[in-house]
This record gives sequence, structure tokens and C-alpha cells, in this order.
Amino acid sequence: MNEAKTALGEKILAIKRAKGLTWTEIAQRLGHSPVWTCAACLGQMSMLPDTAAKAAALFGLTGAEAETLQQIPYRGALPTAVPTDPVIYRFYELMMVYGTTWKELIHEEFGDGIMSAIDFDMAVERQPDQKGDRVKVTMSGKFLPYKRY
Amino acid sequence: MNEAKTALGEKILAIKRAKGLTWTEIAQRLGHSPVWTCAACLGQMSMLPDTAAKAAALFGLTGAEAETLQQIPYRGALPTAVPTDPVIYRFYELMMVYGTTWKELIHEEFGDGIMSAIDFDMAVERQPDQKGDRVKVTMSGKFLPYKRY
Amino acid sequence: MNEAKTALGEKILAIKRAKGLTWTEIAQRLGHSPVWTCAACLGQMSMLPDTAAKAAALFGLTGAEAETLQQIPYRGALPTAVPTDPVIYRFYELMMVYGTTWKELIHEEFGDGIMSAIDFDMAVERQPDQKGDRVKVTMSGKFLPYKRY
Amino acid sequence: MNEAKTALGEKILAIKRAKGLTWTEIAQRLGHSPVWTCAACLGQMSMLPDTAAKAAALFGLTGAEAETLQQIPYRGALPTAVPTDPVIYRFYELMMVYGTTWKELIHEEFGDGIMSAIDFDMAVERQPDQKGDRVKVTMSGKFLPYKRY
Amino acid sequence: MNEAKTALGEKILAIKRAKGLTWTEIAQRLGHSPVWTCAACLGQMSMLPDTAAKAAALFGLTGAEAETLQQIPYRGALPTAVPTDPVIYRFYELMMVYGTTWKELIHEEFGDGIMSAIDFDMAVERQPDQKGDRVKVTMSGKFLPYKRY
Amino acid sequence: MNEAKTALGEKILAIKRAKGLTWTEIAQRLGHSPVWTCAACLGQMSMLPDTAAKAAALFGLTGAEAETLQQIPYRGALPTAVPTDPVIYRFYELMMVYGTTWKELIHEEFGDGIMSAIDFDMAVERQPDQKGDRVKVTMSGKFLPYKRY
Amino acid sequence: MNEAKTALGEKILAIKRAKGLTWTEIAQRLGHSPVWTCAACLGQMSMLPDTAAKAAALFGLTGAEAETLQQIPYRGALPTAVPTDPVIYRFYELMMVYGTTWKELIHEEFGDGIMSAIDFDMAVERQPDQKGDRVKVTMSGKFLPYKRY
Amino acid sequence: MNEAKTALGEKILAIKRAKGLTWTEIAQRLGHSPVWTCAACLGQMSMLPDTAAKAAALFGLTGAEAETLQQIPYRGALPTAVPTDPVIYRFYELMMVYGTTWKELIHEEFGDGIMSAIDFDMAVERQPDQKGDRVKVTMSGKFLPYKRY
Amino acid sequence: MNEAKTALGEKILAIKRAKGLTWTEIAQRLGHSPVWTCAACLGQMSMLPDTAAKAAALFGLTGAEAETLQQIPYRGALPTAVPTDPVIYRFYELMMVYGTTWKELIHEEFGDGIMSAIDFDMAVERQPDQKGDRVKVTMSGKFLPYKRY
Amino acid sequence: MNEAKTALGEKILAIKRAKGLTWTEIAQRLGHSPVWTCAACLGQMSMLPDTAAKAAALFGLTGAEAETLQQIPYRGALPTAVPTDPVIYRFYELMMVYGTTWKELIHEEFGDGIMSAIDFDMAVERQPDQKGDRVKVTMSGKFLPYKRY
Repeated sequence: MNEAKTALGEKILAIKRAKGLTWTEIAQRLGHSPVWTCAACLGQMSMLPDTAAKAAALFGLTGAEAETLQQIPYRGALPTAVPTDPVIYRFYELMMVYGTTWKELIHEEFGDGIMSAIDFDMAVERQPDQKGDRVKVTMSGKFLPYKRY
Repeated sequence: MNEAKTALGEKILAIKRAKGLTWTEIAQRLGHSPVWTCAACLGQMSMLPDTAAKAAALFGLTGAEAETLQQIPYRGALPTAVPTDPVIYRFYELMMVYGTTWKELIHEEFGDGIMSAIDFDMAVERQPDQKGDRVKVTMSGKFLPYKRY
Repeated sequence: MNEAKTALGEKILAIKRAKGLTWTEIAQRLGHSPVWTCAACLGQMSMLPDTAAKAAALFGLTGAEAETLQQIPYRGALPTAVPTDPVIYRFYELMMVYGTTWKELIHEEFGDGIMSAIDFDMAVERQPDQKGDRVKVTMSGKFLPYKRY
Repeated sequence: MNEAKTALGEKILAIKRAKGLTWTEIAQRLGHSPVWTCAACLGQMSMLPDTAAKAAALFGLTGAEAETLQQIPYRGALPTAVPTDPVIYRFYELMMVYGTTWKELIHEEFGDGIMSAIDFDMAVERQPDQKGDRVKVTMSGKFLPYKRY
Repeated sequence: MNEAKTALGEKILAIKRAKGLTWTEIAQRLGHSPVWTCAACLGQMSMLPDTAAKAAALFGLTGAEAETLQQIPYRGALPTAVPTDPVIYRFYELMMVYGTTWKELIHEEFGDGIMSAIDFDMAVERQPDQKGDRVKVTMSGKFLPYKRY
Repeated sequence: MNEAKTALGEKILAIKRAKGLTWTEIAQRLGHSPVWTCAACLGQMSMLPDTAAKAAALFGLTGAEAETLQQIPYRGALPTAVPTDPVIYRFYELMMVYGTTWKELIHEEFGDGIMSAIDFDMAVERQPDQKGDRVKVTMSGKFLPYKRY
Repeated sequence: MNEAKTALGEKILAIKRAKGLTWTEIAQRLGHSPVWTCAACLGQMSMLPDTAAKAAALFGLTGAEAETLQQIPYRGALPTAVPTDPVIYRFYELMMVYGTTWKELIHEEFGDGIMSAIDFDMAVERQPDQKGDRVKVTMSGKFLPYKRY
Repeated sequence: MNEAKTALGEKILAIKRAKGLTWTEIAQRLGHSPVWTCAACLGQMSMLPDTAAKAAALFGLTGAEAETLQQIPYRGALPTAVPTDPVIYRFYELMMVYGTTWKELIHEEFGDGIMSAIDFDMAVERQPDQKGDRVKVTMSGKFLPYKRY
Repeated sequence: MNEAKTALGEKILAIKRAKGLTWTEIAQRLGHSPVWTCAACLGQMSMLPDTAAKAAALFGLTGAEAETLQQIPYRGALPTAVPTDPVIYRFYELMMVYGTTWKELIHEEFGDGIMSAIDFDMAVERQPDQKGDRVKVTMSGKFLPYKRY
Repeated sequence: MNEAKTALGEKILAIKRAKGLTWTEIAQRLGHSPVWTCAACLGQMSMLPDTAAKAAALFGLTGAEAETLQQIPYRGALPTAVPTDPVIYRFYELMMVYGTTWKELIHEEFGDGIMSAIDFDMAVERQPDQKGDRVKVTMSGKFLPYKRY
């Protein structure tokens, strides 16, 4: 249901390769973080007009494509409920192994409620390590208490 | 396939409530981080004999129960492939929304490979914020490059 | 994963029938709305200690049962992903028919974001009507804008 | 099985953006509520000839497209049984959490039967609130008692 | 979620066999049709108190069991989404083969709407035939027009 | 696997609308019942050459299309195992609610066996009713006893 | 839904082992073929009273167990839709590979219709072969032509 | 993953109809059995070059098409795990009803092992019968004993 | 369907731990390889009487338990179609990544056919490596050519 | 999500056939093992620029196609979660039968952890055997111990 945004994402990836850009550079040009910028270019976030204009200038997009960047997507980028790609599956595996732990620790610290996935931000960084560098993922989501009404 | 470890997890949760312990306190007594400690008590990790002995002493467990803590589980704690509990579902939603972004950023930074979910650690913390405190989740997994043989 | 809360829900339903109570009466005694009160008694919400004590007094529950009312559930009360019961299925059908409409109207009015299901309340009422009384369901959830970071 | 109606919905969304129309304005022009109007334009309801003619005039559609608006759809607009888009998923989550409560309250008030999803109407509104505006969804469906024959 | 009603259904089947009763006889004693009577005894319908009292007298049930007959079930009696039993599967097959035909003919005759499965009755009869007797199933459901609001 | 027959069905529906024909009229011209005729035109039944010729004459089809009407389809017209369209879903719901009743009544009357879905016919009619007209569906299938060999 | 018949099947298997009986011998005692006899003992067929009495005598069963052998089962003996056991899976694989061939050959020879699985019998035999003995399965089902009504 | 072979199968079916050939005739021309020949033409088997040449001559195929007939397919011809077409479903039903019987009889006769679906042949024949002709399916697969190593 | 064998497997694992045995030692005592021995003890293979007697002596099992070891299991040891345990999932992942490669290489080398999973053996060994020891899995299965009949 | 790489794989297979190359020869030209080479050509691995250039030269590919060979795929090559092709299914079957054995033996030898599917290599070879040649698959993956943090 998101064909235009997905196709535009593929096009941006090709332009990015051709121009030798990095997500950090693109993010700086758009004035957002690399994670949000990448997600928006791949079609999972909606850009404000101003940001879309910057992206269009940077990538040489048409007006219709800049418009597409502003559309709000039907979110959910994966072709199967359990992802087959190993990079993404490891995230699913973490949920299967740590899901109940996550729930337990949030409830102990905050009470009944959840970590928002909407009022949320994330960073992905390289963590140098002598035994082999590591991927560091930092997530921050507002705690939302369950309303007792 | 993990009934003994799951049932012991339920028992430990009840003892924890009765004794008024926190996961931070339990983690300190066992010499591990709160996330790993909680996951191990809930039955998703295996304790070394020494750690299991400390846990047995702290919770007043039997020898057989200490043995159970050392068993390696058939991992995967959730009853459905797509979790229904809102706390855990938000993690699934993040994967659906950010999966391709995660993949793109890791590949740009590290090349073809994955973030390990085995040589991995995680922390869950409260992040004070004027607009409402936030849940901060920090993950760190070793980058494993795909072998080209 | 919620057996104790579910079983207690069944017990409360039997006591309610035996005592001839209504959810409105129970809700007034507990100081909450009928919808939340019913959901909490059926095991899908967690009561604060004070509310649990009132419920225990009203239904003649044990201390352990009052404790169970305070536990935070693994939410998700239905046995299948697509519900088979006609009352509940109609809700699923509404989602299938109106899901994209709901999304369109919320985005037009509020921009990119969602209606919270956590900072949320609901009422179910009888709406008298000459052609046959109607069920009126009123939902109210805080709008949460997607963070652009 | 509904390709023509779905494609027309996409076209109408683009025209709506280009003309700067709102669903409230469109609804007034068609003489229906915003929710029904939006659902009908997106292809989940069938318009009567008179309404379709008004829509064709407003959006500049062809006669064949006006005909398509009158077709009765194979309903069910979502690509997966459990929706992945967060806006729509929250509705699914509400069903998972409140499904048994909904059933209990309807049965207590009305006896054995259901809320119709056919003799049904719905409104989606902004509910101003100091702590953040809220989405208000009001549903009304005729109670249909199970026939005992 | 319906264990008590299902178990009582099994018990009634055994009593029926032991007493040599037929569904026609039971239906006459209860004052309902054979189809509804059988469905109610098997746990898919709820009896009014008066009917439940007659059933209790006929089958020699306890007061708690008569109460169970009055409970409103979580409907949906089959263990899988696609039934494996050949008798019931043929019904599923008819839906797969004739579903679009059914939809087409109802819409041609009545316009946009459905046949109710709630304001509904059904009969199952033997239809003598020289080439082999036939099963005749007659369904009647109120037409419910889709509301255009 | 049935694309040609399905596409031809869509074409026939358009011709039918353009010519203002009813299924009853079409059925009379083809010499079959309205249900079978509609199912055959929608691509779920195979016509004999003679019937296909009449249909080709009536609708103005090509020889290749008349040939397509004679092809035996890979039956099963619905896009999901549990249908999402409300008209067709009600049939599924009836199976979920009445499946065990149907089985019980057929076995009581006929012994072990099934109602054939092959040696089968069906009619769909309007049943006038003061409280609102009803849809009447009459099915007749040969009883097939399980062979004990 | 078939627990009694399944459990009795397990009991009969144990008695068969203890008594050193073969299915051929049991079949001769019951007056049926080995395939039907085995299926009936495992709970997938219903015995007539006379046959059940013979089986009860042979295996030393109680009257209630003889009654259970006469019950008509909810058929479908496998725990998953795609069987995991290799012996049974090969049958599924044959259906996946030869399903369209089977359909093509039956339609060429008989026209539109099916091979009955109810008016059906089967034999399983050893076929001696120098390169290794073979399993020979012979099925025979009545052709049922699709009714054109 | 088999589009070329499947499309060629459709083409061969059309040529077969146009030429008025039967599978028996085609099989004789290719020097194989009708079942294997039909399966190979439909794209589920691979032909040797010699056989493909005969088929190309018979059907008037191009060299590339003869090449396609020699390709080894990704086997599995059906669009759903549980087939919806009644002809093929009956085979699935037989597996559900007789799967455990098949397993029991093979193990009694041969010990632990399976009937091969690779070193396998099958015939489908008309079996004349006064009460209505029957479809006879004869399968023969090499018994493969489980290796105990 | 395999409860007795699975439960016995759990019991054997406990005895093995208590006695401090290794699979290599157990395998030597039983005269089989460690992989087959372990699979047989866990309930996925059937032992011959002689082997079962040795196992009963080694583990101190009853005669009924020795009998259970000889039973042929309904194979398939995992609770979900896609395994959640990381050790076993990696095998599934290999199939998803290398499945088409495996197929291509086998067909190039051997022609159309498969690697048997029945006439099959496997070894799991430690492979010392300076960069970290490795798990070496060696599989050997007889090539079975597809019969062209 | 991998259409370009998959389509290129099909093209390479055709070129390979036309040129009469073997995977061993291609692997030697590219300087990698046959398994990795085949997987990379089929689109499940990413080539380094140097390797892609050699492949482009060997197969006569364009610059854009050489670029495609370097792209990192969304891995997972099979159309269904349980594969239908017999060659690949046997691997799934091995996982179902030997999964718990594999887990048990790795844990006994190495402790809690997994065999990596990333730091992994595999070979597929012909193993001559008088009773029929065998397929030998040798896998080697680094053992990764679960981190206890």
C-alpha cells in the first residue's frame, strides 16, 4: 500500500551510492538524526515540507517525489510476520528472548504502562572494542502509564 | 519445552514480591547486570553453578531448583509469533518500522554482516525528562561480518 | 501466561451473578468507570492496592486474590488472532472496513501520529432508538504525534 | 478483488490534496458524514447514483469512475490479518484487551446478541484537552438479539 | 473459554444416547426447533431460564448445570480455522466455491447489505430421493442493508 | 491459477450491468438455475459446450471466451482462508457456530457420512417478511454414507 | 474433540503389541479390510455395533469402550496442517507435486467432478522387488460428477 | 519460482485441446506413463533431452521451450498449504483421516521407515462399476528403512 | 502424539546428568553414533530390542520404558513451524539462505533427485580453531534420483 | 525486496547453461568456494568489487549488473515458511527431527551458545558409495558462547 514511497526509497539508495553520500551527511543536510533520516528516505516516516524540499535538492528529485516524501506511510516494511533476513531477525530473536524481561523491568521501575514507539528516538553507532567492534543501539521512548479511569 | 524453568520463574517473582526485592538488588547479589539477572530468573538464560547457588540462597530455593537455573532453556518466551502484550508489541512494531533502516545503517557502517544477539548485552534505565520520564534501552552486540569463503 | 488473573475473572463473574450485582454498581464501589472495572476484573488491567482491597471486600476474596488483582497482566485475552465470537468479530470487521478511513481522518486532523490505546478511556452505553435500541461505544485516546528527531 | 475501487481511492486522495479539500467539505458536498464519505471514496462503501454524480462533479471523474463508486466492494482493506500500521494496530490492540469486556457489558445490558457493524455509524473528532488533544471515536450500532427459534 | 458449556454438551450427548432420545423429541420438550435446540445443548447458544429448567428436568441436570445452559458462550466451536472434519469441511468448501455467487445474488436482489447470522434460523431435513436421499438445509436470515450515513 | 475465468467473470458482470440483465433472465436463457448460472459466469463452474454457446451469444463473447467458460476451474474464489467480506464471512461464522450441530443432526438422521458438495444444488431467494425481508438459502446435497470396507 | 476415541486407539495399540496380533488378523476377526480396521481402531472411523462387539471381545474392552468404537469421530488425526512426520509428509508432498496432474487426468477421463473420499476404499501392501521391496497403495473412490442444475 | 515451466504447461494444455490429444496418446509418443507425462508437461518433473525433443516435435515448441521442459522445477504446484480445489482437497482429507493408519500399517509390515515419494510411480485409471465408475489410483514407492548408525 | 517418548527423553537427560555420562559414552555403550544415540534417547528414533535393553540397563529403566524406546515416533520435535530457539533457528536460517544453492549444486552434480533424510547419517564435532573453536556438522545422505516412469 | 539480485541470478543460470560452465569452474575463476559462489550468484551473498568484476567478465555482465552483485541482499530465498520443494524440505525435516539433538550435543560439548550461521562455511560433495553415491554436506560455524553480563 506504500509502493510510491518504497520505490522512491530504492531510487534514493541508488542516488546515494552514485553520489557517495553517507547517512550522516544526508542527516546533517536535512537537519535530523541519521536513523530518522534513513527511515524517512526508505519510506517509513513522513517529512515536513521544508525537509522534503532539502531532500529534493540534495537528491535531485521532482516535485511529485518531494510530495511523496511528505505522505504518511502505511507503516510496516517487512514482507513476512517473522522476518527472514538475519540482520532483522536478530531483533525478533531479542524480543522472543528478552520480551518478558523488558516487560518486568519497565513495570518494576515505572508501574503499569509501556515505552512509546511514537514519542521515540533511536541511534545506531559503532562501539570500538578490542575483541571486535560492536553495534550499539540506543532507544529512548516516553513512558506512557496505563490510564485507570 | 521449558516448563520447569518457567514455573520457577513464576515462583521467584512471588518470592521477590514477598521479600520486597528489586532486580537491581538481586543483580548485585548475583554479580550480574539487572537485565541478564531478570532474564535468567525468568528462565531465558542459564546460570553457572556459582550464580545459581547465590540465587538459591537469596530466594530460598531447593537443590533441584538451583539445578534448574543452570539448565539451558529452549529459548522463546512468548505464546504467539506476533506478541499481543502492548509492552512487547511495541518492540515488534519498531522492528516492522525500523527493520530496513537498522539493516541499512549497519551495512553502511560495517559492511555485510549482523549485530550478534548472542555476544550481546542490554540495559534498561529510567531517563528523567521534564515532559515525562523516558525508558532508555541500550543494546550492544558484536558485529559479525559475513564470511566470504 | 495469565492463568491466575483469568481464573479469578471467572470466579468474580460467578460471584457477581450470585450476588446479582451489575458492572455499574461494582464500578461505583471501586470508584472507576464500568468499562475499566470490568476489564480489570476480567484480568486485563491492574488494580492499585486500594482498589483491589475494595474489590476483595465486595466479592469476598482472599488476600492472595487481592494481590492477583494488582498484578500487571500479559495482555491479549483472545484465543485466536482473528476472533471467532460474533460480538468481538464485529469489532475486527470494523477495523478491516474502516481501518484506512480511521487513519486518513486522524492524519488529516492531527498530522502524522496515532490515537493512544494506553492514555485511553472508553464507555459502552445503551442508546434508546425507536427502530431498536443501539449500542454506543465512545472511545477517547490522546493523540500522540510521531517524533521527528 | 477490488482493484478498481482502490485505485480510484488513490486518485481521489491526490485530487483532494491538489484541490486542498477536507473530508468535512467533501462530506457536506455529498450530503453524508465525513467517516462514511471517506470510507466510500477509499472504496469500502458503495455510493447511490446521486451521490456518485456529486462526487464525480466535485473531483472531475469520468462516467466509468462514477460507476465504480457505485459498485459494492469485496470489503476488507488491509493487507494482513494483524495490521502492521501503528494507527490501525491500536484498534486491534483494543480488541485484544477489551474484547471480552465489550462482550460482557453488551450482554449484561442487552442480553445475548451483538452490536451490528452494518446498521452502524461512526464519528471521529478532535477533543481539545489541556494535556494534549485527544481523538474521540463514537460508534453506534443497532443491538441485534440472537434469535431463539 | 467455553469449557463448562462444552463439557456439559458432551454429558448431554451421553445422556441422550442412554435415554434413546432424538433431537426432534428434545426440541419438542424444550419448545424450540431441532437445530437451535441441538446448538444450545452443544454450548453454542444460551437458553432462557425457563428453557434451561425444562432441559434440566429432561436430562436430570443439576442447578449449576442449568445455570451453565443459560450462560452466553464465547462462540466458535471448531479447533482450526479451516475445519478438518469432512462433514463440516463441505460447508467451508461451499463458501469457497459459492461465496462470490452468494454475494452477487444478494446484492442484485437486495442492494448493498448482508444476510444476518444473528436474526437467523435454520432447518436440517431428510429429502427423500430415488437416487439416494438428500440432506436439505434451509437458512433464513434477515437482510440488513448497509447504512449510508 | 484461474485468471482467465476470473477475468471473464469481471467482463460478464460489466456486460450484464450495461445490458441491464438479471441473473434470473440469464439463467432462463442458459437453461439452468440462477445460482449455478452465476457461479459458472464468475468462473467457479464449467459449462457444457451448448451452454457456453448460449452464453457467448447472450453476452457477445468470442470463441476463445466461450472455450474459457467450458474450462474446469481450480476452485476456491476467495483471497484469504477466513474471508474478510461481511456477506461471505457470515457464512463462515455460521460454520463456526453451527458446524458441530450440523454434524450431529446429519449423523442422527443418516448415520456416518456427509452431505455432498458436488451432487448439490442451492437456491437463494427473497422471503418477504413484515419485520424486514429475509434472505432464504436452500441447499440440497446427496447424503453419502462412509463406506465400511 | 476426539479424546476418548484417540485414547482408546492408544490402548488398542498396546493390547495388540502385548497379544502379538497383526492388523491382518484383527481385520479378519472383524470382517473388514486391514486399512479400514486399523483406521477404525485408531479412532477415525465408526464401527457398527456388531463389529464393535467383536473388537471388544478380541481386545478385552469394556462396554463403554465398545460404545466409543461406535461413536462417529470429528475426523482429522494430525496435529498440524502440514504434517511433520516423514511417513505422512511424503503423502502431502505427493499432493503438492501431483495435485494438478491428478486433477487433469480425472477431468480428462471423467469430466468435471471428483474422486469421492467417502465412497472410498484403500489397500496398503508389500510389493516384492529385487531392488528393494515397495509399498503399494491402491485407492478406489467413486467418481462424483459436478451437478449442473 | 517456476514461472517459465508453469506458463509452458498452460500453453501445452491449450495445444493439447486444439489438437484433440489425450494424455495416453501423448504418453505413448514420449515413451512414459500418462501420470509422469502429464506431471512433466505441467512443470513438476524434468524431461531428459530426448524426451523433450519428442515433446517439442509433438506440440510444435521452440528450442527454448524444449530447454524449459528439461529444467528441474522448484516443486510444489499449489497456491495454498491446504488446497481449496475439491479434487485435490479430497487427497488432503485422505491424509488427515488415514495418515496415522498409513503410518501404522507401513511400520507393521516394514519396520521404521517410509514410502519414497522419489523412487515412486503412480497410475490413475477408470474402474468400471455398476453403481457408478470409480477412480483408481495406484501408488508404488520404494520402502526406505531409517538408518540406525 | 509422542508424549511417552518425550517424557522418557526428559527422564534420561536427568539420569545422564546425575550419572555424569556423556553422549559419547552412552553411544559407545549402545553401539551407535552419538548423534543417533542422542536422537533416539530424546524420542525421535526407534531402538531395536537389543539396543533398548542396553539403554535400559545403563539408565536403570523399567521394561515398559525399554518398550517405549522401541516405539516408532510421530517425528517432529519442535513446538512451532519456525523454531524460536537460537541454536535451532540458525539451521532454519541456513535453509532460507542456502536452500536454492543446495538444490542447484545437488542437481548439477547428480541430476534431478534429492539427498535422502532417511538413509542418512550425521556427526557433530568440535573443530579446534585459533580464532575460536568451531562446530562441525557432517551430513551424508544417499542421493535418490527422481524416477522417470 | 530482492528482485534485481534474483533476476540476475536467473540470467546467470542461463548464461552458465549456455557456456557449459560448472560451479566448480566458476568458483575457481572467482577465487571462492563453490557453495559461496553459487549462493552469491543466486543473490543470497554480496560480492566484493573485485569478485564482482571477475564475475562480470566471466558472464559478460553490464556495469550495473556487477554493481547488483555487490549489493547486500534482504536474505531469505524461499516463497513459503515451510518449503515445498523436496530437496529443500528434507533439510527442514532434518531440523524437525534432529533440532533438539543438535542443541543437546552442542551444549554438552561447548556449553550455552550457538553455531554461527554468519562466521560459517559449507561444502557439498559427492561421496562415492557402492550402494549408491551419497551427498555429503559439511558445515562449519564458529561457536558463539552466550554472554553472561
